[in-house]
Amino acid sequence: MLDFWQDYPEIKEKLIAVQTMMTERLAVNNTDIRDALQKFTTRGGKMVRPALFFLFSGLVDEEIVDEERLVKIAASLELLHSATLIHDDVIDDSPLRRGLPSVEAQFGKDVAVYTGDFIYTVYFELLCETMAATPFLPRNARSMKKILQGELTQMQSAFNADNSIRRYLKAISGKTAELLSLACLEGVYFSGGDKQMQRSARKIGLAIGLAFQIYDDVLNFTVGLEEADKPILTDFRQGIYTLPLLLAKEEAPEKVLPYLEAPGGLSRQECIEFSELVTDLGGITGSLFLAKHLTDQALLEIEKFPESRNREILMEVTQTLLQRNY
Amino acid sequence: MLDFWQDYPEIKEKLIAVQTMMTERLAVNNTDIRDALQKFTTRGGKMVRPALFFLFSGLVDEEIVDEERLVKIAASLELLHSATLIHDDVIDDSPLRRGLPSVEAQFGKDVAVYTGDFIYTVYFELLCETMAATPFLPRNARSMKKILQGELTQMQSAFNADNSIRRYLKAISGKTAELLSLACLEGVYFSGGDKQMQRSARKIGLAIGLAFQIYDDVLNFTVGLEEADKPILTDFRQGIYTLPLLLAKEEAPEKVLPYLEAPGGLSRQECIEFSELVTDLGGITGSLFLAKHLTDQALLEIEKFPESRNREILMEVTQTLLQRNY
Repeated sequence: MLDFWQDYPEIKEKLIAVQTMMTERLAVNNTDIRDALQKFTTRGGKMVRPALFFLFSGLVDEEIVDEERLVKIAASLELLHSATLIHDDVIDDSPLRRGLPSVEAQFGKDVAVYTGDFIYTVYFELLCETMAATPFLPRNARSMKKILQGELTQMQSAFNADNSIRRYLKAISGKTAELLSLACLEGVYFSGGDKQMQRSARKIGLAIGLAFQIYDDVLNFTVGLEEADKPILTDFRQGIYTLPLLLAKEEAPEKVLPYLEAPGGLSRQECIEFSELVTDLGGITGSLFLAKHLTDQALLEIEKFPESRNREILMEVTQTLLQRNY
Repeated sequence: MLDFWQDYPEIKEKLIAVQTMMTERLAVNNTDIRDALQKFTTRGGKMVRPALFFLFSGLVDEEIVDEERLVKIAASLELLHSATLIHDDVIDDSPLRRGLPSVEAQFGKDVAVYTGDFIYTVYFELLCETMAATPFLPRNARSMKKILQGELTQMQSAFNADNSIRRYLKAISGKTAELLSLACLEGVYFSGGDKQMQRSARKIGLAIGLAFQIYDDVLNFTVGLEEADKPILTDFRQGIYTLPLLLAKEEAPEKVLPYLEAPGGLSRQECIEFSELVTDLGGITGSLFLAKHLTDQALLEIEKFPESRNREILMEVTQTLLQRNY
């Protein structure tokens, strides 16, 4: 999936260094877990968090940086993300992750729980090695807590027909935006950026994070409908009611609510009908509008940084994240 | 279970302060998880790790100590232990923990995984608050890793009739002894004990930890056999082959091995027979002998500390841990 970065070899190269670092640090004396970790980290996702970290690091005009330290910090971001994903899949019993069998599906619950825990320890080790004398150790602890609390808010709202947009935004702020925001902030901080830059980076990360998750939630309503063999509306059927649905419900609760009585039991045809209903009621357009608005906010803020190749890439990437179809 | 400490009110009082600290720090905006955490931490175990921490802290003749900091560190030890227990129960699908329904049995897998993860974050927060400028942050990361690797070693050896005593000792060194050893070491370190005292504390903790786990494994072979409604030999039936069994197997493999073909499928009567076989072959006596030997080593080392009320308690407790029946 690093193909996402093929037009930016300078970033791709750094992400490969992060993968190498992760593989080295995740070496473990258990073949199942070693395989699970190896597969998960190298055939992994787009590595958005380390990438944002490096892009923001590149916005700072500072010559003396310890490259290995930056790679370690970038790896810590991806590891924290990986651990939460693996545990999420245990919780949801997800058969797939990133188009491949999930760690749980492939190796069982026991391996998946320990693999996640083990990744937490390596994450923790990397933090200790790179951040001991900075405010970023407690800051990471706080982020980790917020991420979990986001997941909890989402869990507590599951199958709740009264779920509100406010609550949804709170959940995704924790679940997704917090870590993206941390990635941007750390990028600036660990390359010597000043307070003003740090504030900006945090704000941009938050906006990108919210937009990114909203867009993900739109995709969950629109992707795969034509391919009969693909699971569709997976979040909805697990009782996770996201923005497109919530906007549609505001528009016409009497049409939407009947579908929320037992979403897990809906047939494929009914799911497709529901997706069309959500679209017709403006749930998709409204969500995309909000995602676009957040992206524009991020872009405005990015423009405040001095012009540079990194700024250019960052602006392109921020927009591309809302044009992906996976 | 704090009754275990009823003869030592000075320790019991500190452990109650640790419980209060944990309750405060584990406050979370999700009622299920809050209940789960509350029940787990206050109706909990003997709190051996914080207790050892305080006892070792009391061995150091140092007047100026920050009591709140000590309570936080003691809480971090109990929290790390709790998180690993909760995840273990997810992995084993254990119905019971400490005689009560496990977090998983009571609240489901989703709550159990997140509860464990959430506890890790609070553990991490407490470390950041108390150990930032010490070598004990990376030290904790290393311990956490060892504990998980111990669990992994055990998992990898499950149902393996070739499991060896060496491998068993390695697994319990990580799984149990590592954290007890850390508790003792931190007790001395954070009260200003010197290098020599630190070395002693670590050694004592290791010996107590090994003895403690071996004794636990003996109890798993001997407790509940007469009570028809209690599950028995639970570890053995899950393929965890511990010292009593391994010693018996050395003595007469031809008698022991047939039981290892499908331990999960054995009837209650067959389990009782197997327990008797292990006893007859010296598995229990041999294990108790080793536990006793380790305890004696610990006691000899404890005697090197200057005489004090804390030393006296520590010696009594070290022996009492091998006389419990739960």
